Amino acid sequence: MSRLPEGYNVRALVEADLDNGFLDCLAQLTVVGEISPERRQGKRVFVSRLFSSFLLSRHWLETLQYILSRPDTYFIRVITDESGRVVGSGTLFVERKFIRNCGSVGHIEDIVVDQGQRGKNLGKAIVTHLAGIAKELGCYKVILDCDKENVVFYEKCEFKDKGAFMAQYF
Amino acid sequence: MSRLPEGYNVRALVEADLDNGFLDCLAQLTVVGEISPERRQGKRVFVSRLFSSFLLSRHWLETLQYILSRPDTYFIRVITDESGRVVGSGTLFVERKFIRNCGSVGHIEDIVVDQGQRGKNLGKAIVTHLAGIAKELGCYKVILDCDKENVVFYEKCEFKDKGAFMAQYF
Repeated sequence: MSRLPEGYNVRALVEADLDNGFLDCLAQLTVVGEISPERRQGKRVFVSRLFSSFLLSRHWLETLQYILSRPDTYFIRVITDESGRVVGSGTLFVERKFIRNCGSVGHIEDIVVDQGQRGKNLGKAIVTHLAGIAKELGCYKVILDCDKENVVFYEKCEFKDKGAFMAQYF
Repeated sequence: MSRLPEGYNVRALVEADLDNGFLDCLAQLTVVGEISPERRQGKRVFVSRLFSSFLLSRHWLETLQYILSRPDTYFIRVITDESGRVVGSGTLFVERKFIRNCGSVGHIEDIVVDQGQRGKNLGKAIVTHLAGIAKELGCYKVILDCDKENVVFYEKCEFKDKGAFMAQYF
């Protein structure tokens, strides 16, 4: 993967990250949902892990538990800065198919880097890291959808524009 | 969903479909893998279900078992003709997210209709059926990737062109 700045690391998402920058990052991507005022302001909340869990909306914990219970399907990775705070994240979602000799496809989703951390190639680092996991798993390809304005960025990550991304909203 | 021709039905994939047209349909979409000569010719193979299972490559059965063991994630639907043979299929693959209030997204994959059955709106029928499942499940959107030449078809299925589909092959 692309080299990370000194002191930055990439690792799997853990429960404590819900209160350590992960949801703040996602909120910069799209609508996340209700976030407690402390986390909305991007401040770290120094509380015990038990109390922290009460602060978190139950459905985030349930979603995390669901995702962690399917370790062959969901691979959520975070980038942490020197302080250990989450400053970027991305998901690899693995689909098994009947085609291509019962091959697997990796779907890259929800790539985001904290606004204050841009310009450090963290986006490319997380994308190439997730693509590397897909390759190690034996996926025959890894795919993603993006706005047309982001095609050039993903081309730098060794992706090719293959067609259209269509959606129907409910 | 779109109305199916008389005698045609849509239902969930079952094991017997592996030897009843399903793999023949997929072979028209892309590379499926080794298919026995009888099935490659599109002929129905009248053998006992037990013997039929031995004809099938083990990895198809394993893939089916894997998929059937995750009924909240994989929804493979087939269209059958008057004789009960599979003449079309498609997959809805459901992803859970942290964004959008821990919402879910439906991914539509591997839509195919048997070459001899085209012009009967079966493609639109399977796509709208899968989108309907996604809506019933509470997904906030359903998405798919396609060649640019198929954008008009999916627009008729109430999808909108939202951007680029990027891929990296291994």
